[in-house]
Amino acid sequence: MDIATTDETLRAALRSAFAAGVQGGDSAHDLAHAERVWANARTIRAAEGQGSARVLMAAAYLHDLVSLPKDDPARARASTLAAAAARPVVLRLGFDEDEAGAVCHAIVAHSFSAAVTPRTPEARMLRDADRLEALGAIGIARNFAVSGALGQAFFDPEDPFAWHRPLDDARFALDHWAVKLLRLPETMCTRAGRRLAEARCADMRAFLAMLARDLGTPPPEW
Amino acid sequence: MDIATTDETLRAALRSAFAAGVQGGDSAHDLAHAERVWANARTIRAAEGQGSARVLMAAAYLHDLVSLPKDDPARARASTLAAAAARPVVLRLGFDEDEAGAVCHAIVAHSFSAAVTPRTPEARMLRDADRLEALGAIGIARNFAVSGALGQAFFDPEDPFAWHRPLDDARFALDHWAVKLLRLPETMCTRAGRRLAEARCADMRAFLAMLARDLGTPPPEW
Repeated sequence: MDIATTDETLRAALRSAFAAGVQGGDSAHDLAHAERVWANARTIRAAEGQGSARVLMAAAYLHDLVSLPKDDPARARASTLAAAAARPVVLRLGFDEDEAGAVCHAIVAHSFSAAVTPRTPEARMLRDADRLEALGAIGIARNFAVSGALGQAFFDPEDPFAWHRPLDDARFALDHWAVKLLRLPETMCTRAGRRLAEARCADMRAFLAMLARDLGTPPPEW
Repeated sequence: MDIATTDETLRAALRSAFAAGVQGGDSAHDLAHAERVWANARTIRAAEGQGSARVLMAAAYLHDLVSLPKDDPARARASTLAAAAARPVVLRLGFDEDEAGAVCHAIVAHSFSAAVTPRTPEARMLRDADRLEALGAIGIARNFAVSGALGQAFFDPEDPFAWHRPLDDARFALDHWAVKLLRLPETMCTRAGRRLAEARCADMRAFLAMLARDLGTPPPEW
């Protein structure tokens, strides 16, 4: 049995397990995303001063072991499938049943669409860490990459910032900022997560100001 | 015959012709892109004070009438195919042979990969107007959308800003900024185009600073 004894051994084992087992990954849910979520989670844990680093690291690396496209009707089940796939991985790495259960709960509860309340510190920190990935420069990149992959328009050319129409984030990538992304700070579960989310939203508003200038139109009040 | 007599009639006819005839368009080469290229071209023409507005408008709306994905080996021929498809459209709209020829030349020469020298004011202005679309906030959106559509990584997670490796823009979307996008200002054919390109590159460098902060790494010197 391959029991991981140090942080770096565990991390290497989790990276390999993700790379070998990932199902349905795209450029928004690849190993690099998992690494960034772990970096965010570690920052949040350092500020919050609680939770198991082992559980959080495993949950961060394996939270998208199964992922489904944004337009897949089964998307709300992806985090449950990912948790089921993660359980044998962490047991094989020497986690006990309680730890494995904590990893699985954090993975199930990280998902926005699953709408499961995070009950543990690790689950709250993973959720915030993953939501940070939807914000800031990296969130901008991921938003437009998803839009490109789905063949979705960036914005309504007649009314990019939806001054005179209802928001529709199924049609326009930018509408998703107003509908969901710029409102994520208020959904954060930890103080550190919320502070980081607010800084990243400020960057996104700076980007909106650039875009408005390119388009010759006033910026939105989102 | 449907002869367009005013700017707005011509514009409406060109929009319809593009929407009806476009082949291979994606979210980076759609009607909204054509509209923005026309807006850029009009700004540049106002600053330069030369060239035919009719020819420039037709070339702007029809320059991507045929477009091919970035990874298509025939991509260098797309602008020639677009020009051939545009000729009957503008003749039907009442352009004479000289005007149609000028539209076609501008369309052929706009393409980076075709490597044809623009010989007329309209060709130089269209090329600059189209290159502006690769820069600034809209250029960022288009770059990451293409990366999402091709399933390409945003950047090298081990070395996002290529401090310790050769640039490789076939693998990493961000490497394309250093290889090509941030060098576009020096390829501009008009003074107004170059000034606008430099302002948009400054916005892209601001984005790189945001990304570096998110990743906890120093920004590049691109």
